[in-house]
Amino acid sequence: MTYARPLAELIGHLERLPGVGPKSAQRLAFHILRMAQDDVRRLSESLVEARTSLSLCQVCQNVCEGPQCALCADERRESSVICLVAEPRDIGSIERIGEYRGRYHVLHGLLNPLAGIGPEQLKIRELLARLSSGVEEVIVATNPTVEGDATALYLAKVIKPLGIRVTRLAHGMPIGGELDYADTATLISAMEYRREI
Amino acid sequence: MTYARPLAELIGHLERLPGVGPKSAQRLAFHILRMAQDDVRRLSESLVEARTSLSLCQVCQNVCEGPQCALCADERRESSVICLVAEPRDIGSIERIGEYRGRYHVLHGLLNPLAGIGPEQLKIRELLARLSSGVEEVIVATNPTVEGDATALYLAKVIKPLGIRVTRLAHGMPIGGELDYADTATLISAMEYRREI
Repeated sequence: MTYARPLAELIGHLERLPGVGPKSAQRLAFHILRMAQDDVRRLSESLVEARTSLSLCQVCQNVCEGPQCALCADERRESSVICLVAEPRDIGSIERIGEYRGRYHVLHGLLNPLAGIGPEQLKIRELLARLSSGVEEVIVATNPTVEGDATALYLAKVIKPLGIRVTRLAHGMPIGGELDYADTATLISAMEYRREI
Repeated sequence: MTYARPLAELIGHLERLPGVGPKSAQRLAFHILRMAQDDVRRLSESLVEARTSLSLCQVCQNVCEGPQCALCADERRESSVICLVAEPRDIGSIERIGEYRGRYHVLHGLLNPLAGIGPEQLKIRELLARLSSGVEEVIVATNPTVEGDATALYLAKVIKPLGIRVTRLAHGMPIGGELDYADTATLISAMEYRREI
């Protein structure tokens, strides 16, 4: 079965997106055929606008319009703490808790020697340039995975000699989680870093 | 946390697609920011082209460019059998088996009185207009769901009086399936329509 060319092309383009298999590409494409033409046009324009108008913040490497992101431009945020995240979307996760008032820095990836990602491939040079003055603590908020751990250890080794505190998000039982469902590594971590009550 | 406006807008547009939640909309959006600009432009143009250049085949209501789809234009296909499907993508599923050489008709939905979808909302009038001459069998290939069954029964009632055979795809155990995992309704059906070997 060959779909009409424009439809087959659209399915092909959609299939290349992450997390979109052949089935969901088809479903999405047929959904688009049923959408209002104006909505399709807006989606289409939004794709190109996002791709062409956004760049990386010169300071923290977050995705933004213009040279500097809203967070870096915000004078009220504390400059002595930098929270280090792997991807721009991680900033959203931390901002949502509404507790953190310091700065951010986006690495755009994690160390992964097997995939050819070394320190040069991450925004580490840009980070070190920011550490020259006034920064007292770097909170490494990478995911608790092999790559996240390796990146945290590497950065601690590089940053600590500068006289700056390097901390990491605590590991442990998620609030509301059940012992029964927690994996061993999490439990070991929760046990190791147990606190007095 | 507010994302830069073009990014927030893109995420908003993506979230409205079926099967795309807030998380995957974010992931898709960040993927698009990393894609080559040319690829984004092609995807964007493909969306609008598919939406604007495709229409429904005047004969079978399949999605196509121009007035008639490739399947209806194919003179070698048998005209005495029409396979009735709910959605254009279902044609793909049946064409893939490579056994069926008749015609198709797309209903664009299934009867669902609770959702306000009656016979007038489906392409049934167009189907009946095709049944006037030479059609000997209508194969109802709707999904074996409540709506699929209801639609099949309704169509049988309407089409049989015209002296045309109405058949339905067999239900039963999927090949390679395990009894252990088959649901009761499938097993009942498989038992009821058991065949001699």
